[in-house]
Amino acid sequence: VNLILIEPDDVGPDGRTVLTGVRARHVTTVLGAEPGRDVRVGLVDGALGVGVVEECSIERVTLTCRFDGPTPKRPAVDLLLALPRPKVMQRLWAQLSALGVGRIILTNAERVERHYFDTHVLARETYRPRLIEGLQQARDTRVPEVTVHKQFRVLVEDELDGLSTARLRLVAQPGGAASPREVIAGVPEPRVLLAVGPEGGWNAFELRLLESQGFTPISLGSRTLRTDTATVALLAIVHEAIGD
Amino acid sequence: VNLILIEPDDVGPDGRTVLTGVRARHVTTVLGAEPGRDVRVGLVDGALGVGVVEECSIERVTLTCRFDGPTPKRPAVDLLLALPRPKVMQRLWAQLSALGVGRIILTNAERVERHYFDTHVLARETYRPRLIEGLQQARDTRVPEVTVHKQFRVLVEDELDGLSTARLRLVAQPGGAASPREVIAGVPEPRVLLAVGPEGGWNAFELRLLESQGFTPISLGSRTLRTDTATVALLAIVHEAIGD
Repeated sequence: VNLILIEPDDVGPDGRTVLTGVRARHVTTVLGAEPGRDVRVGLVDGALGVGVVEECSIERVTLTCRFDGPTPKRPAVDLLLALPRPKVMQRLWAQLSALGVGRIILTNAERVERHYFDTHVLARETYRPRLIEGLQQARDTRVPEVTVHKQFRVLVEDELDGLSTARLRLVAQPGGAASPREVIAGVPEPRVLLAVGPEGGWNAFELRLLESQGFTPISLGSRTLRTDTATVALLAIVHEAIGD
Repeated sequence: VNLILIEPDDVGPDGRTVLTGVRARHVTTVLGAEPGRDVRVGLVDGALGVGVVEECSIERVTLTCRFDGPTPKRPAVDLLLALPRPKVMQRLWAQLSALGVGRIILTNAERVERHYFDTHVLARETYRPRLIEGLQQARDTRVPEVTVHKQFRVLVEDELDGLSTARLRLVAQPGGAASPREVIAGVPEPRVLLAVGPEGGWNAFELRLLESQGFTPISLGSRTLRTDTATVALLAIVHEAIGD
């Protein structure tokens, strides 16, 4: 953890906050905090700052915080992801927020199994701590917005314009298509909506629908990757290409 | 699985091979094989080809193979990786071979815990099936070579030149340094050796030693990523930059 993220409601008017549980243990044992020392802090969806350790034990750390640093910009990439199986999704949350995504739009598709939606992995109380964990790793404060959609067509035709303002829309499709960099090059201050399909890919109808809504097919070359590897790889390449 | 990889010893002079266990189940249930149908096959470290299903049951599939396709080139990226904890390493094997690495050089470092070396995850019989799994995903046949080194200094000063012929050496270091693409641009037909440190980074001595041996510091920008996420992200960006 390279930053301790704190919910606004947990900070008193004097800047005081109390950490307990795992976070208190981390601050004392890993960061080696002791009274008088500084730790990097951030307000969830707000500014970065510094916390001075007032008191600390392995169970309870009191900080006085000043949030006078900059507020990180929302990452310029949104992700449209065909819902992977729960075990994979569970591992992805922290990686996605660490890499930086403005919004995570999870969708059904023909090759997504229906029972993937019936999981605690999609409950806010499960994924939010994971997203926070990734942000603390990457020193960001902006929690990605998450929505879950069971009707692919309704999502793509009617809802997507309201969910992402990204004008550049890319869909990953193994083989053939352009590299993400080629498509992004020359677009000034691009904001990207990246679509990643299920294991086995989008079906022909889904791909046509995405293309009809402005998505350009891109690929990583001839190698077919597992969804989670492909998502991390593509997010890294897109971020690097847009200089975000 | 997008390719069935077969060990040369398992193919008879007439091109016959028998799949059992998980692979037979996969070919029958997922690929829906039946007598007369083709499946994509490859020889481990050899050529791609086609296998015709002769007989099949859920426990046993007989194929007659022709390996008359091209032999994939060895990936142009080698990886020098500070050994991550076993659980993370276990998940990385298949991702590394799917993304494409010629050689995986695992090393000690100050921030690598000693007990990470005492694990079945580093046994050839554990990691080889994982590497094969990643190759089958990516339709490659070239198994990365793997070596494990407990003495960082001896490795970097004395052994590295013999392990990797890559003339372009990059070391990932959060913050400040150039982007991988900037360093790679302009190098004709680059072969890259990429070094990725432990959680918490290389220490100052390690970084100096790497730089003295020709490694150029690069970074992914201001975000600090977990080792496994960083490794996948960097491999993707380097492959994209060298057009591999």
